[in-house]
Amino acid sequence: MLSVIKIGGNVVDNPGLRQQFLQDFAALEGPKILVHGGGKIATQVAVKLGVETVMVEGRRVTDAAMLDVVTMVYGGLVNKQLVAWLQANGCNAFGLTGADGAVIRSKKRTGWSVDYGFVGDIEAVDAGQIARLLEAGFVPVFAPLTFDATLASMLNTNADTQAQAIAVALSQLFDINLVYCFEKKGVLVDPDDDSTVIPELTPSLFAEHKVSGVISAGMIPKLDNAFKALSDGVRQVTICHAEDIRGAVATGTAGTRIRL
Amino acid sequence: MLSVIKIGGNVVDNPGLRQQFLQDFAALEGPKILVHGGGKIATQVAVKLGVETVMVEGRRVTDAAMLDVVTMVYGGLVNKQLVAWLQANGCNAFGLTGADGAVIRSKKRTGWSVDYGFVGDIEAVDAGQIARLLEAGFVPVFAPLTFDATLASMLNTNADTQAQAIAVALSQLFDINLVYCFEKKGVLVDPDDDSTVIPELTPSLFAEHKVSGVISAGMIPKLDNAFKALSDGVRQVTICHAEDIRGAVATGTAGTRIRL
Repeated sequence: MLSVIKIGGNVVDNPGLRQQFLQDFAALEGPKILVHGGGKIATQVAVKLGVETVMVEGRRVTDAAMLDVVTMVYGGLVNKQLVAWLQANGCNAFGLTGADGAVIRSKKRTGWSVDYGFVGDIEAVDAGQIARLLEAGFVPVFAPLTFDATLASMLNTNADTQAQAIAVALSQLFDINLVYCFEKKGVLVDPDDDSTVIPELTPSLFAEHKVSGVISAGMIPKLDNAFKALSDGVRQVTICHAEDIRGAVATGTAGTRIRL
Repeated sequence: MLSVIKIGGNVVDNPGLRQQFLQDFAALEGPKILVHGGGKIATQVAVKLGVETVMVEGRRVTDAAMLDVVTMVYGGLVNKQLVAWLQANGCNAFGLTGADGAVIRSKKRTGWSVDYGFVGDIEAVDAGQIARLLEAGFVPVFAPLTFDATLASMLNTNADTQAQAIAVALSQLFDINLVYCFEKKGVLVDPDDDSTVIPELTPSLFAEHKVSGVISAGMIPKLDNAFKALSDGVRQVTICHAEDIRGAVATGTAGTRIRL
């Protein structure tokens, strides 16, 4: 079983939670891959550099100046700090983006009502090249950046979608356990009450909760990614708190388990 | 023969020269490794972020804020842009730092009269891990950053020294051709006249030129690295213009050839 673990920006931004997560991740048995979000550091750096942050429906609009910022912050600062901390915890982490080895190719998003700029929709994940990294004993740590060969450019990419695409591509070669880790206990009925975790979510229950408004707009793209991963060949998908990662990987019982 | 090519910051900063170099590098036959310097972008970003740049004897003093800047700029922006451009030229580039796979471990420099801050002196290069990347078909592209496991930190590292250390470590496994590329035709008798290239430099000629002042202070550390590489097992060392890389690799006749 290969674990593909995604951590959100809120975990990256929280030193205590991040440190605990990194220790737990380092201790996970078996082959594993980490995909990290960006966090608030990109926005803070952008402010200092005089680059305006524009968000539309929770997504960052990425002009050329902002692409440089996210390439620096996600691909440089955050990625290399995570790698250094994991290495210091005995995990043979190896940081990369979709451009390295051209392992994740994407196309600049066009045809939407909003021009998101240098944002990539994933076209192809090279599972063979990623598998060769795993075989060499490395633990790939992905920044949320992919590569457009036609533009010879990095593209900013949603980390949830990137984790799903990596998991699906590698499901040709491995049984995959995909875990989305964030700062809540799972998909919640009441977003402010961690005791209201939905233990198991099926497509019909998801549809029901969307209609009733129990599941918030912000969770919907994450859940769409989770269901797509399952339907495209991933064995197990869980959404849980970053502090529950060991349980999620070992038994699949933490947080919200996604089922078809 | 494995080519280890180092390009200086002035090549990175010059779009025309850089583009020609990347095309030539992509076209080089055989296994190869690129090590890049930082360029002026780090200083420009530091200015915008309000981080003061302090240079002592041509070396950057790296406090914690500057370490973040060079990790962003060298490990993120410059490294990933070089990778994206090489990939678009058909070269299977794979960007990394010394932290990735812990391939280059260093120690924070202490005991000097100047406190350079988070600057690393290289302790160990893991030739086996780098060789596995080469065997997997990747072309490693190194940013000038290494890894201190005790501090769990990146360290800023001189790119000339890093190229020499990589070349020496891999000389256990390959015949190595080490080429230092910059914006001059080689080691010059008159630094303003490209027609005054010294075609061959031996230790005795180097000593003579140092005494007479023909070789400038700035060239001395580069040449110390070049001679150390040769004496520690590297087959061939050349210092040349970035535009002469194909000749330097194919025949070893471009620029200044270093000999023991």
